[in-house]
Amino acid sequence: MTVRFGLLGAGRIGKVHARAITGDARAKLVAVADAMQPAALAIASQYGCEVRSIEAIEAAGDIDAVVICTPTDTHADLIERFARAGKAIFCEKPVDLSLARVKACLTVANENDAKLMVGFNRRFDPHFRAVRAAIDEGRIGTVEMVTITSRDPGAPPPAYIKVSGGIFRDMTIHDFDMARFLLGEEIATVQAAASVLVDPEIGRLGDYDSASVILTTASGRQCVISNSRRATYGYDQRIEVHGSEGMVAAENQRPVSIEVATSAGYTRPPLHDFFMTRYVEAYAAEIAAFIAAIADGAAISPTGQDGLAALALSEAALLSVKEGRAVRVSEVTGA
Amino acid sequence: MTVRFGLLGAGRIGKVHARAITGDARAKLVAVADAMQPAALAIASQYGCEVRSIEAIEAAGDIDAVVICTPTDTHADLIERFARAGKAIFCEKPVDLSLARVKACLTVANENDAKLMVGFNRRFDPHFRAVRAAIDEGRIGTVEMVTITSRDPGAPPPAYIKVSGGIFRDMTIHDFDMARFLLGEEIATVQAAASVLVDPEIGRLGDYDSASVILTTASGRQCVISNSRRATYGYDQRIEVHGSEGMVAAENQRPVSIEVATSAGYTRPPLHDFFMTRYVEAYAAEIAAFIAAIADGAAISPTGQDGLAALALSEAALLSVKEGRAVRVSEVTGA
Amino acid sequence: MTVRFGLLGAGRIGKVHARAITGDARAKLVAVADAMQPAALAIASQYGCEVRSIEAIEAAGDIDAVVICTPTDTHADLIERFARAGKAIFCEKPVDLSLARVKACLTVANENDAKLMVGFNRRFDPHFRAVRAAIDEGRIGTVEMVTITSRDPGAPPPAYIKVSGGIFRDMTIHDFDMARFLLGEEIATVQAAASVLVDPEIGRLGDYDSASVILTTASGRQCVISNSRRATYGYDQRIEVHGSEGMVAAENQRPVSIEVATSAGYTRPPLHDFFMTRYVEAYAAEIAAFIAAIADGAAISPTGQDGLAALALSEAALLSVKEGRAVRVSEVTGA
Amino acid sequence: MTVRFGLLGAGRIGKVHARAITGDARAKLVAVADAMQPAALAIASQYGCEVRSIEAIEAAGDIDAVVICTPTDTHADLIERFARAGKAIFCEKPVDLSLARVKACLTVANENDAKLMVGFNRRFDPHFRAVRAAIDEGRIGTVEMVTITSRDPGAPPPAYIKVSGGIFRDMTIHDFDMARFLLGEEIATVQAAASVLVDPEIGRLGDYDSASVILTTASGRQCVISNSRRATYGYDQRIEVHGSEGMVAAENQRPVSIEVATSAGYTRPPLHDFFMTRYVEAYAAEIAAFIAAIADGAAISPTGQDGLAALALSEAALLSVKEGRAVRVSEVTGA
Repeated sequence: MTVRFGLLGAGRIGKVHARAITGDARAKLVAVADAMQPAALAIASQYGCEVRSIEAIEAAGDIDAVVICTPTDTHADLIERFARAGKAIFCEKPVDLSLARVKACLTVANENDAKLMVGFNRRFDPHFRAVRAAIDEGRIGTVEMVTITSRDPGAPPPAYIKVSGGIFRDMTIHDFDMARFLLGEEIATVQAAASVLVDPEIGRLGDYDSASVILTTASGRQCVISNSRRATYGYDQRIEVHGSEGMVAAENQRPVSIEVATSAGYTRPPLHDFFMTRYVEAYAAEIAAFIAAIADGAAISPTGQDGLAALALSEAALLSVKEGRAVRVSEVTGA
Repeated sequence: MTVRFGLLGAGRIGKVHARAITGDARAKLVAVADAMQPAALAIASQYGCEVRSIEAIEAAGDIDAVVICTPTDTHADLIERFARAGKAIFCEKPVDLSLARVKACLTVANENDAKLMVGFNRRFDPHFRAVRAAIDEGRIGTVEMVTITSRDPGAPPPAYIKVSGGIFRDMTIHDFDMARFLLGEEIATVQAAASVLVDPEIGRLGDYDSASVILTTASGRQCVISNSRRATYGYDQRIEVHGSEGMVAAENQRPVSIEVATSAGYTRPPLHDFFMTRYVEAYAAEIAAFIAAIADGAAISPTGQDGLAALALSEAALLSVKEGRAVRVSEVTGA
Repeated sequence: MTVRFGLLGAGRIGKVHARAITGDARAKLVAVADAMQPAALAIASQYGCEVRSIEAIEAAGDIDAVVICTPTDTHADLIERFARAGKAIFCEKPVDLSLARVKACLTVANENDAKLMVGFNRRFDPHFRAVRAAIDEGRIGTVEMVTITSRDPGAPPPAYIKVSGGIFRDMTIHDFDMARFLLGEEIATVQAAASVLVDPEIGRLGDYDSASVILTTASGRQCVISNSRRATYGYDQRIEVHGSEGMVAAENQRPVSIEVATSAGYTRPPLHDFFMTRYVEAYAAEIAAFIAAIADGAAISPTGQDGLAALALSEAALLSVKEGRAVRVSEVTGA
Repeated sequence: MTVRFGLLGAGRIGKVHARAITGDARAKLVAVADAMQPAALAIASQYGCEVRSIEAIEAAGDIDAVVICTPTDTHADLIERFARAGKAIFCEKPVDLSLARVKACLTVANENDAKLMVGFNRRFDPHFRAVRAAIDEGRIGTVEMVTITSRDPGAPPPAYIKVSGGIFRDMTIHDFDMARFLLGEEIATVQAAASVLVDPEIGRLGDYDSASVILTTASGRQCVISNSRRATYGYDQRIEVHGSEGMVAAENQRPVSIEVATSAGYTRPPLHDFFMTRYVEAYAAEIAAFIAAIADGAAISPTGQDGLAALALSEAALLSVKEGRAVRVSEVTGA
């Protein structure tokens, strides 16, 4: 089976997904839609596909699946529309910044038996996958403690901060998903601290730029997350899992791995300075996994429920900071 | 000036200190005391010093300073006695497991203008000192976030757990001191999670074997600590400090640094498996610093107040676990 | 300008180059030729180009450049034919295994002012390029000593050994080119030792599987090369350059960079096990450089003369082994 | 048995050995001799031993063993005298710079059944010992190729170069011994290149400052050595052994292992800048091995024959440079 695609959104990440789709022997990019006509035309020209409206893609008989990479506030609506249209859906995270809206959206998706994958790309990073594989192979025994260090090269502009939903919903959410991916057990409680150390403007907007989080599962497994909106040495993305028999860790990645030794010491270059170069392999692999799942009729992962669960952890973390206490996740989800 | 020493306690750590004293050109080991006569005799024979009673050392005119490495429950009493006797005092941590007892003891020490150094040996580890030096030299800008990973090779026996004061007072206390050494600002609040993942017997004794802690200073600097009583790969002791201009980290230490590459991969040996080999240089350096401070009339560090502060953080962490909330340090210290 | 390509040879490496050409905005793959029709058809189908005969490509008005990845013994003839046909030529190394034949071929290329690039792909590896860039930026001062460790994952089959030209012409030739790329001065003398340690069959075929080489330039700069046909831990490719002000080194590459720590130690995965995955970025970059040079009318590098120079070093190394003496390169080139 | 020592030479290395002897429970430092009386007195005072003349030590009934760390040109004479006096002898390398003189000296030692250990301290470095242990445990299969990189922090002064015997006898000799320690088979041929790249004054004195060497055993095992008299980044001492089943390598050593990451990259401190700090553990371990061998009546290693063999390789290397050819070791030894 060849999976025929419509691409919704021809921006930066849309281009990345277009390339992944066209490079996959089991997929075909049929059409692209974007409110910005030139962006859609550029992709259409490079990959030999059509430009269509979203409505046309919704109604198309020659399209099996869509990739949603439009602005965040359109995600939930588009998921509902394409779920009703019977298309398989890959949607960039987040589904929405409101927990209630996500729940409503997933209800629609479920009612329509939609195949819905949420773009937690880091699960597809080859290094992080290898960490998970080492756990699954039993190399470190039972998972006990996960440590995630996640720091951006630089803080986003205030305009972005305003619509981001705040550090926990925008940035830590990736780490929450990774914690769930690695802990092997649902998270029960969240403790968080957050402050403004990088940019006072972020504080004026009511957000934080530095955060520490402890997650605990019912059986007592723990995860600590350390976040900063700025790291001068590049995009710091480390994961470590400690278990009863050992530990597995994924190292940071840099564009070139040379070392220069002088009287000043031994120096390796800084890390990647951009998430799209750091996770270039992950972006390709997640689309490949989506295509394979549809082509093979296999289960999709991560699902909309995974998106919901990570967002709930974000809500709980924010509540923990505000109230200075450990927050049970059930308080937030109402479960 | 030659600093003339009396050594109180001829056990494992007493031997280490005896060697450091006798190897220092500015010091002389005059006498050793131990309830176990053979242990005292062994040190006396090897280093050519006398065996005396504690009382005799207390009254001695030829002794300037004592090193206290007797059992923990004798520390506070001995500090008070030797403070009154006008001796300089180096005491292994902790001063006592009770915050009230430590306060009372330090009052006596202060009233007698005692020179009192508490044995937070890790401050003298050359790697951790280099971390602090990098901060002091401004290489990473303003300190924002400290990450401490501290895992023992294996859990202590139940008999030890019973008298240890629990994981926070016995193990994390070192990390609390290190956090204070590196954060550059006093800690205001403590959030902690703890569980029993390694050994159920530890749980039956009312203690924990796995803990995560977030410390926050008044200005919002953060520190996360990850503790486990067991690490199959050795004595895991890592410190990382993230600042406005960069990051500095101290790597783990192993006895030999070779690497064997085969079809199974590239393998380096496990870490040190014992705190006394891991911190062999630190033990020597802390005694050297004590000797130098006395000989030069310089300020002593870390002080009894440092011991008190670290113990207060232990208390706060325990309270945080019990009550599921962020605990202000002032609640514990009454300050 | 769009560079229009004919691809000669649709085997393993032909597919890699086809992908690089079609992914480049300045290039177009017009036709592919291969004696094995199905292989040519597969590429034509995937990338939407034509299958043509070599003669048709030679005569084509819609083709500017060819990529030669046919068997080694056809390279020199094809270079001559396409030089006469006025096409720009990218040819996989080696031009030929015979020094005389290479010289004759290059004479024809020169007479026809052919743009000829030889496929020393390692010059385009991002890590090795960064080594060269560090030198060019003056970070290590004047180059003094180059160390190249180059070991294959496993020995090739006897059938390949027979036609390979031997270890120096087949394997070390890459290291000879790298030495020339990094030493910054032509090589004057060669000393080599070679033996059969991996596979006695290689010895029966008159070849070696383990070799050490010292190269010296006129001013006394030195390079040591260590080669083995087998490394259990993967494709070992290290380069180190020592200079008056410091050293720069390129580390080995592995598919994933995780580390698992257990009681057996800290283990990272083996290296890449195949040259095409190890040098995947280099293959893409060399074709991109070829396209850019043609499109911009810029100088091509590495040239046919670079191919000749590396082959001459191979000859000199073999002579050094046979005669147990330092061989001047001029003895071999007749220069 | 307690081994009673006389120390000949109270200079820099004499102090190191004095400390090792006095720290060993099976040894006692009885006397020290030095032409410079204050140096001898300093050691005597610190460790509570006597100052005696060499003659008195020779005749002493209360001395079992001597440690010779006087100037090189006195070594052979002192070995002969103390061999005749029936003392066990530890002598700093080299026995002598003349192959003939070494042979004559060893003849005397043999005739007197002297226990003679030569100070190739690197064999006792814990990292290099671990390399050898990995080989002995079969972890890398059969040894095939050894790679030794050995670079000094800085070139010695001209006055030292004049009496050093040249780079091969003074510096490479350590690497020759290490090659013999690791190859598991005697070396049959030597190929070497040498030049003056660091300091022209060294060239004016007839010596070299940069050298590359290939050693080959009868069965074809190979070793490459890379030497420079200067490395800006510290004392570069690396060893790597490649075998049929894998590879083992010893990494460089630095005083502290921290890493600072900034926008300029990740920087670790330079290496040790002095051989006495780099090999501090090796110096202690070699004396401990000497003491243990005497106390236990065990075989001593490395022996005078090891000293002779390494010097022969130095001679062969020099001859190879001069004559531009592979030199058989038997040409030099006359064996």
